Amino acid sequence: MKETQDLHPEAKGIQLHEVGVRNLKTLLLIHRQETDFKILPTVEIAIDLPDNIKGAHMSRLVESITDVLTDESRKHSSVEMMSTQVLSELSKRHSYSRAHMILQFDFVVEQRTPKSNKRTFEAYPIVVKTTRTNRGFNAEEKIFHEISVSSKGNTVCPHAMANNDGKTHIQRAIGTLTVKGMNEDIPEFEKMIDILEKSFSSPTFTLLKSSDENFLVQRMHNNPLFCEDVTRNILAFAREEFGKNLEIRAEVESQESIHKHDVFSRGGWV
Amino acid sequence: MKETQDLHPEAKGIQLHEVGVRNLKTLLLIHRQETDFKILPTVEIAIDLPDNIKGAHMSRLVESITDVLTDESRKHSSVEMMSTQVLSELSKRHSYSRAHMILQFDFVVEQRTPKSNKRTFEAYPIVVKTTRTNRGFNAEEKIFHEISVSSKGNTVCPHAMANNDGKTHIQRAIGTLTVKGMNEDIPEFEKMIDILEKSFSSPTFTLLKSSDENFLVQRMHNNPLFCEDVTRNILAFAREEFGKNLEIRAEVESQESIHKHDVFSRGGWV
Amino acid sequence: MKETQDLHPEAKGIQLHEVGVRNLKTLLLIHRQETDFKILPTVEIAIDLPDNIKGAHMSRLVESITDVLTDESRKHSSVEMMSTQVLSELSKRHSYSRAHMILQFDFVVEQRTPKSNKRTFEAYPIVVKTTRTNRGFNAEEKIFHEISVSSKGNTVCPHAMANNDGKTHIQRAIGTLTVKGMNEDIPEFEKMIDILEKSFSSPTFTLLKSSDENFLVQRMHNNPLFCEDVTRNILAFAREEFGKNLEIRAEVESQESIHKHDVFSRGGWV
Amino acid sequence: MKETQDLHPEAKGIQLHEVGVRNLKTLLLIHRQETDFKILPTVEIAIDLPDNIKGAHMSRLVESITDVLTDESRKHSSVEMMSTQVLSELSKRHSYSRAHMILQFDFVVEQRTPKSNKRTFEAYPIVVKTTRTNRGFNAEEKIFHEISVSSKGNTVCPHAMANNDGKTHIQRAIGTLTVKGMNEDIPEFEKMIDILEKSFSSPTFTLLKSSDENFLVQRMHNNPLFCEDVTRNILAFAREEFGKNLEIRAEVESQESIHKHDVFSRGGWV
Repeated sequence: MKETQDLHPEAKGIQLHEVGVRNLKTLLLIHRQETDFKILPTVEIAIDLPDNIKGAHMSRLVESITDVLTDESRKHSSVEMMSTQVLSELSKRHSYSRAHMILQFDFVVEQRTPKSNKRTFEAYPIVVKTTRTNRGFNAEEKIFHEISVSSKGNTVCPHAMANNDGKTHIQRAIGTLTVKGMNEDIPEFEKMIDILEKSFSSPTFTLLKSSDENFLVQRMHNNPLFCEDVTRNILAFAREEFGKNLEIRAEVESQESIHKHDVFSRGGWV
Repeated sequence: MKETQDLHPEAKGIQLHEVGVRNLKTLLLIHRQETDFKILPTVEIAIDLPDNIKGAHMSRLVESITDVLTDESRKHSSVEMMSTQVLSELSKRHSYSRAHMILQFDFVVEQRTPKSNKRTFEAYPIVVKTTRTNRGFNAEEKIFHEISVSSKGNTVCPHAMANNDGKTHIQRAIGTLTVKGMNEDIPEFEKMIDILEKSFSSPTFTLLKSSDENFLVQRMHNNPLFCEDVTRNILAFAREEFGKNLEIRAEVESQESIHKHDVFSRGGWV
Repeated sequence: MKETQDLHPEAKGIQLHEVGVRNLKTLLLIHRQETDFKILPTVEIAIDLPDNIKGAHMSRLVESITDVLTDESRKHSSVEMMSTQVLSELSKRHSYSRAHMILQFDFVVEQRTPKSNKRTFEAYPIVVKTTRTNRGFNAEEKIFHEISVSSKGNTVCPHAMANNDGKTHIQRAIGTLTVKGMNEDIPEFEKMIDILEKSFSSPTFTLLKSSDENFLVQRMHNNPLFCEDVTRNILAFAREEFGKNLEIRAEVESQESIHKHDVFSRGGWV
Repeated sequence: MKETQDLHPEAKGIQLHEVGVRNLKTLLLIHRQETDFKILPTVEIAIDLPDNIKGAHMSRLVESITDVLTDESRKHSSVEMMSTQVLSELSKRHSYSRAHMILQFDFVVEQRTPKSNKRTFEAYPIVVKTTRTNRGFNAEEKIFHEISVSSKGNTVCPHAMANNDGKTHIQRAIGTLTVKGMNEDIPEFEKMIDILEKSFSSPTFTLLKSSDENFLVQRMHNNPLFCEDVTRNILAFAREEFGKNLEIRAEVESQESIHKHDVFSRGGWV
């Protein structure tokens, strides 16, 4: 067997920052709070490649995932812990100075409708990126995580409301909160969802009976917000609840009901 | 050169209904009303294949497009006429009993804002499908077209408005009108756009100054409509204006501001 | 509470064929062969609406899903059975003459690599559409299902191979097998996957060690196939295994490595 | 008219880095080398917002685009020049310390097939981002551009080829070259396309007659390359041709024909 990957590349002096696989779909089992969660993520995993190595052994990246997932002696109490184990397993199989793994999936939470108190399932897109750096010979590895959670809410235009005796335009908006930090500082997904939901003019629900719909309509009209206001709300709530150990970023897209385009806003502390 | 395509296939007795290429991007020049329109469509072109032929000569499908587009002696006054010429050219190069060509593109129209009367450009997704059947030895070919035009407007919920003293929820909606018929009955894109825009609670604009925004907000609140109402409006206007020589279909998607999911409605006469 | 939905619509004489919700994400628990499967589908559910009713009560569609999903006395041994129960529940809450439910999700199967015999997880996009018609006063309802399963394989061009001494071009291809019929005739997803995988020049795997890669490369070169050949293979295998009680359709898209566009082919028996 | 945007926001001390509109479609006319090019881009335009201002006047962002586009006294000889004028116009209408505009569109180039010398149209996705910073009272503004051009080619696996007597797997790959710098250093799109096309195992063509197909198959087998090799080729060619005044980055995605996932590689100098 010829290991073509280990040859020297023709182009000299060019290291590559990220080499790996993406759009890989697999199945995770997370055991958390005495419940088994099954997650079907889309995965990206990559390493850096020095300038004197032609190619990565891609199957070792995939194998690191498969072996951690199918090792029944391991218990993963969180997605971040599972990712940390995969990058640790990978460092035994392939040399790298920096590697990352990204998992994208929908997280479904059971909630209650606001007035009729009926059970409803709400889905939130989540992205978990875990990065591991192995710097130098004796250095300890360093692991950090970047978590993004999105939710759909709405914006009620305060400008139109102020100029039309309370009448205004309203639209669906998508908010995303991203935090980055060390394992011990990473909040639970549910806490990030709570911050998003209270930052909109109103959150959205999959099931709404008429009494719930009326409640939301009233709440929305009492809480007119620009896209910019929602972004600042997310940032202010997140800083207050998560403190300064985390990088915090927020983005909101308002899918304008009177325009064909979207309005957006981004901010945060890096 | 071995023509592998002309061999008999291993699997016996299986004709194929559509064989061709898609996701092909090209450049069209349409000369209409003394103006040159450049269109960059995504193209699908396909033929049927009898059960005793292994494969289509795909390059002949592509060549039929390229040759018609680059023949400067031809003038195409409409997308449908250009498609008709491509399918005619193709019938000289490849046998088929039925072929179709689909062109998807954005059509940009200059409009005026409703109150401030400023110039604004509005884009509309359009799909043109042209089908040609060659039935039998002496039979004339038959050509028909299916045109879909989409526009973004909005819906203002009449149910929430009736139960909340005029307060309601509002959201972006996407309407699509599809007509199918012979060349002489196909309406202009602009007429289809007009029908869509007057069917919503209000149309949308890319540019809106405050006076325009106020005008739209008033109009929306005077015209509350379900997704179902918008669909029926499109169908009623189209039947009235285009008569009964055309198949007419309509679909509306309302991207609910109080839900994470969309509401939709479809109807028409086939 | 005013029930605006029950009013007569302004546009007269226009029934709507499909009115409902889509892009709804939820969580299903399927109990099959003594295992719990968690599925996170994207859902569409719709009914028809007669010409004298203004709007559907959309929350009743959502509630039919939520109530069946959260009723712990029910055991769903298949996605089709769950859909059947939802449409039955819906017929108690909202009148309709025809309703359908579509579930789209990824189905993950554990397999073994072809030579190294390592565990690998492979994901297959699946669409399950269940339709229920309630025709007339005393008539029994009628239920049928339409199932689509997709898999990624590859095509190895036999034309280029015949003209280049065995050298050729190779590309990823996506095959989709669709079957439609009554509940008792619907095959298991795994059987549909098997048919797809043996119809390509070779199937694909998420994990491949070098011995597996070599095995696939040899197999691919021994099995050159056009997109059209793969479509006919799927149809021939499906007809042979599933008989004539099912409608069978197949579609293959070959993402050409020497072109920017894709080649596709469709066939079947309706 | 109340200018709600100019109020102070409720959340204190939070500036926003980017506030604007996106997914706006419009029509550009570029006059270059004595030819009129019509481009239908998707546009994003944004400014920063200080912590004491509630919202941006979004219509002024849109108006800056519309007014530059419809001013017939202006001649735009490049997309970058048009973007520069829009950001200059915007600085007269809305205060900002940093603004950007992103245009995404397909650029269609007429080429010749490699052997049969037939005319063929090839489309390349392009992204042009122009940023303008206004720093301080007397300071001159600073403008820079970031241009990304993508092309579809292919990769021929050298590892499988070395271990299977010349047989291998082949797949479509997408390469993207990004450059960033001042206006005078920005290369023409065509030069960036040339670099991409010579970096793959082979480029792709929309039209290929059999003689062309054979030529490509031979070329591909003489030029086996990993995804990593293609990335380094792009970087090496771009550095050689464009020198060190530009930031240069490259990314390649190889859509593996033996896997369901993609392989990717990124590198460059910032």
